[in-house]
Amino acid sequence: MTRTIVESKSKTAIIGFDQPFCVIGERINPTGRKKLAAELEAGDFSTVQADALAQVAAGATMLDINAGVVYNSNPNPNETEPPLMREVIKLVQSLVDVPLCIDSSVPAALEAGLEVCEGRPLLNSVTGEEERLEAILPLVKKYNVPVVAISNDDSGISEDPEVRFQVAKKIVERAADYGIPAHDIVVDPLVMPIGAMATAGLQVFELVRRLRNELGVNTTCGASNISFGLPNRHAINAAFLPMAIASGMTSAIMNPTREAEMMAVRAANLLTNNDPNGAAWIQANKPPLAEGEVEAGARGRRAGRRRRRG
Amino acid sequence: MTRTIVESKSKTAIIGFDQPFCVIGERINPTGRKKLAAELEAGDFSTVQADALAQVAAGATMLDINAGVVYNSNPNPNETEPPLMREVIKLVQSLVDVPLCIDSSVPAALEAGLEVCEGRPLLNSVTGEEERLEAILPLVKKYNVPVVAISNDDSGISEDPEVRFQVAKKIVERAADYGIPAHDIVVDPLVMPIGAMATAGLQVFELVRRLRNELGVNTTCGASNISFGLPNRHAINAAFLPMAIASGMTSAIMNPTREAEMMAVRAANLLTNNDPNGAAWIQANKPPLAEGEVEAGARGRRAGRRRRRG
Repeated sequence: MTRTIVESKSKTAIIGFDQPFCVIGERINPTGRKKLAAELEAGDFSTVQADALAQVAAGATMLDINAGVVYNSNPNPNETEPPLMREVIKLVQSLVDVPLCIDSSVPAALEAGLEVCEGRPLLNSVTGEEERLEAILPLVKKYNVPVVAISNDDSGISEDPEVRFQVAKKIVERAADYGIPAHDIVVDPLVMPIGAMATAGLQVFELVRRLRNELGVNTTCGASNISFGLPNRHAINAAFLPMAIASGMTSAIMNPTREAEMMAVRAANLLTNNDPNGAAWIQANKPPLAEGEVEAGARGRRAGRRRRRG
Repeated sequence: MTRTIVESKSKTAIIGFDQPFCVIGERINPTGRKKLAAELEAGDFSTVQADALAQVAAGATMLDINAGVVYNSNPNPNETEPPLMREVIKLVQSLVDVPLCIDSSVPAALEAGLEVCEGRPLLNSVTGEEERLEAILPLVKKYNVPVVAISNDDSGISEDPEVRFQVAKKIVERAADYGIPAHDIVVDPLVMPIGAMATAGLQVFELVRRLRNELGVNTTCGASNISFGLPNRHAINAAFLPMAIASGMTSAIMNPTREAEMMAVRAANLLTNNDPNGAAWIQANKPPLAEGEVEAGARGRRAGRRRRRG
């Protein structure tokens, strides 16, 4: 049974076929969040702090940390991103105890993150690009960490799922040359927007099944990409996640503060027998508290609202 | 590509791997509905009428018709159910134009339904029980209709999915002896409550995949059974349906007036490329009308409410 072990200083999370779905909180990422980017350049970490706490409270298994700000004062991310990555990771691990996922397109920022990150973080990411393979796999080996492998290569992102499968296979094989086992590779088969490619869902479901059965690897994806540009995105995401899980997907980089998606993930855990005795489901769906009762926590509050709707 | 054709007088519905999921409305069924049972015995068809209209308005592809009332005045369903089935079918097909699914455990009621039903209804059901096979398959042949095959036999409902697969296989083979093709068999692999059997979901997903790949048949189920006894049942059902669809399930007997489940089915259609250009998704998720605008229909109203919540 494939198991990818990730750790913080005090907590272990296992990504695996026989485990609850691993929810990697996506919020700490300035890409497309201008306000957060400006804050970070100004040395203001209040949003990072709030996002870290909120995502863990909402049930994130891990948090993704991306410090990819292009500074107005210095457009060279090789200079600015490594120290920012260090600072954000130190802050987040002082606030929450979940394992982290160090996310950057800048190899020096990944290494900076690895230097300060406690435990065994997930590295995000290597691709099938030659330069990237040669830069990242030695880091993966040196720090003995698992890595996200995105299935694009020097020719870009193929619309042909067979090509994406072969890129993933190449990365797994190249990693093996470095002595990195398949269970430390978490493949992202790349999720296209269904609005742009009608077969995007079917492609992912089929790829996840093959990656699991033929390569024995865990899988992840940027889940919300599937619904880009369409109305009622949360309802699409909330159907996509259970479908991907039924096909064998074991983690996703997603927003854990979205109720629809998280409830769908919890239900999928129950339905794949990865919620022993339904304990997590029942906990997340407790009846609402009566007026005047002391509020137990954010999770109880949300579940209560949902039940009254039902 | 397996296609099961069902028809009303004026409408054709296709159950198939490359078709939108077939939603068979379950509401016209007095089982567990005491008030409806009492109404039917008293000759009051107002609830049937309302349920027929509401289910079709909510998007049902077909309607299941079950007239299984045990009369207080006459406890013999062989006498009471056939005329009631006739009456209910005549009424429903005077109100709505979707194809029907004639549902009874009483063979005489099935035949009564077949006599009055226009078009090509789905017959519900045959099982692997010897007596049932011998009573129902000749009817299926005589009326040239498709049939639901429930995978239990004279030994009852097995908890072993392999046994349930073998029962389905036996029914398909026995039907072939009568000249009934596999594409006219819609197998119900039987959905157990996940609260009673933790592997119930995994069993169904695996069975549906095998039934599709090895027997080439369409599949159905009583979807809400999966969540029996658990809190927030609609959220479980709304995750179960997309997971079953991702595994290859092509229809379900369910309540189409439940928004969570229907939205999940619509999203799953989109994600399996069975919603050309996302037209049905976009239609079901139109922005809410402004105050004073004329309401277009029930579907727009529901979608509007959901969007405001999102």
